[in-house]
Amino acid sequence: MLKLFYTPGTCSLASHIALEEAGAGYEVHRVDFSKAEQTKPDYLTINPKGRVPALVTDRGILTETPAILAYIAQSFPKARLAPLDDPFEFARLQSFLSYLCSTVHVAHAHARRAARWADDPAAQEAMKAKVPQNMADCFALIERTMFVGPFVRGDAYSVADPYLFTIAGWLESDGVDPARFPRILDHRNRMAERPAVAKVLAEVQS
Amino acid sequence: MLKLFYTPGTCSLASHIALEEAGAGYEVHRVDFSKAEQTKPDYLTINPKGRVPALVTDRGILTETPAILAYIAQSFPKARLAPLDDPFEFARLQSFLSYLCSTVHVAHAHARRAARWADDPAAQEAMKAKVPQNMADCFALIERTMFVGPFVRGDAYSVADPYLFTIAGWLESDGVDPARFPRILDHRNRMAERPAVAKVLAEVQS
Repeated sequence: MLKLFYTPGTCSLASHIALEEAGAGYEVHRVDFSKAEQTKPDYLTINPKGRVPALVTDRGILTETPAILAYIAQSFPKARLAPLDDPFEFARLQSFLSYLCSTVHVAHAHARRAARWADDPAAQEAMKAKVPQNMADCFALIERTMFVGPFVRGDAYSVADPYLFTIAGWLESDGVDPARFPRILDHRNRMAERPAVAKVLAEVQS
Repeated sequence: MLKLFYTPGTCSLASHIALEEAGAGYEVHRVDFSKAEQTKPDYLTINPKGRVPALVTDRGILTETPAILAYIAQSFPKARLAPLDDPFEFARLQSFLSYLCSTVHVAHAHARRAARWADDPAAQEAMKAKVPQNMADCFALIERTMFVGPFVRGDAYSVADPYLFTIAGWLESDGVDPARFPRILDHRNRMAERPAVAKVLAEVQS
């Protein structure tokens, strides 16, 4: 059975929701960041990067959200979570996942994780100060040029939707008013009402 | 025909090599960063993010290196540039691509592109100062836990190889001695001898 290592408040929520939407059999294991469990030897044998998510499969362990999301979509094709038979549309989906991972999540990380990129506390504060602007710029681009609606790809729900939902959930804590992006906010509200999303949120927050 | 927008010295090299290895019919268009062409309206209609690479196809435009590399592998299956029929192995490949894109490339970008994440020049200098350590940490992890050898995935060449080759080519300018990572350096040297790689390098540097 699949086993997801997750931490509340992190991007692991996207993979968690995708597993639920796929109808996958899976169990979860919470990694407690408040105890720095992600840096302990036990967890580093699961993911040497010391991050979540990690998905344990019967073939081995997968990390990196875009890779896990595509894996879930490919492993549960009946759930129709990605355009698996169309390399161009699949690439468009993957481009969106990659942008969230390498630009938007990275912009967000400069608030609490600025120590990754500079040792000087003043520099870390300077990075934190720019997070609202960078996150707003990213979401302006998503709202204007990437998000089709009503779901990310249009009428077809996909693994991009829980990923966008996850990161859009960080806007307030990053100092951005989500009302500036009405289509993204509407998507976020509709996502929260999906049974799979509500179930996962209840489990994560319990 | 496919058309790749590229800039010498950037990650677009990975997609360029992959197109050549795939035997694709393609043409290239150089985006001149010294003239800030990537920020001009003409290019922003191609890629609103103002970055390279961008791959123009007859279906539309693709951006983000991991998405473009998987697209090339899926569009030219005879070139065997990815394990297309095995979702788990495909996910492992994608995990590697995602790590290069969202962690290693981002670590590198804090040298010349620190202004993305802080306005204060002193903070930008503090970020630049940490680049050698972060790049070395990334490559230590790749050498120790990810790189199988002789190619990234083992015996099978894949789109991960030109991407690793591209980013490993930045080590010296990031203040890291590649000799610290003998398996990666050996890979880099062998890659440079491949006819497709040599052809692309000659074209890019001309």
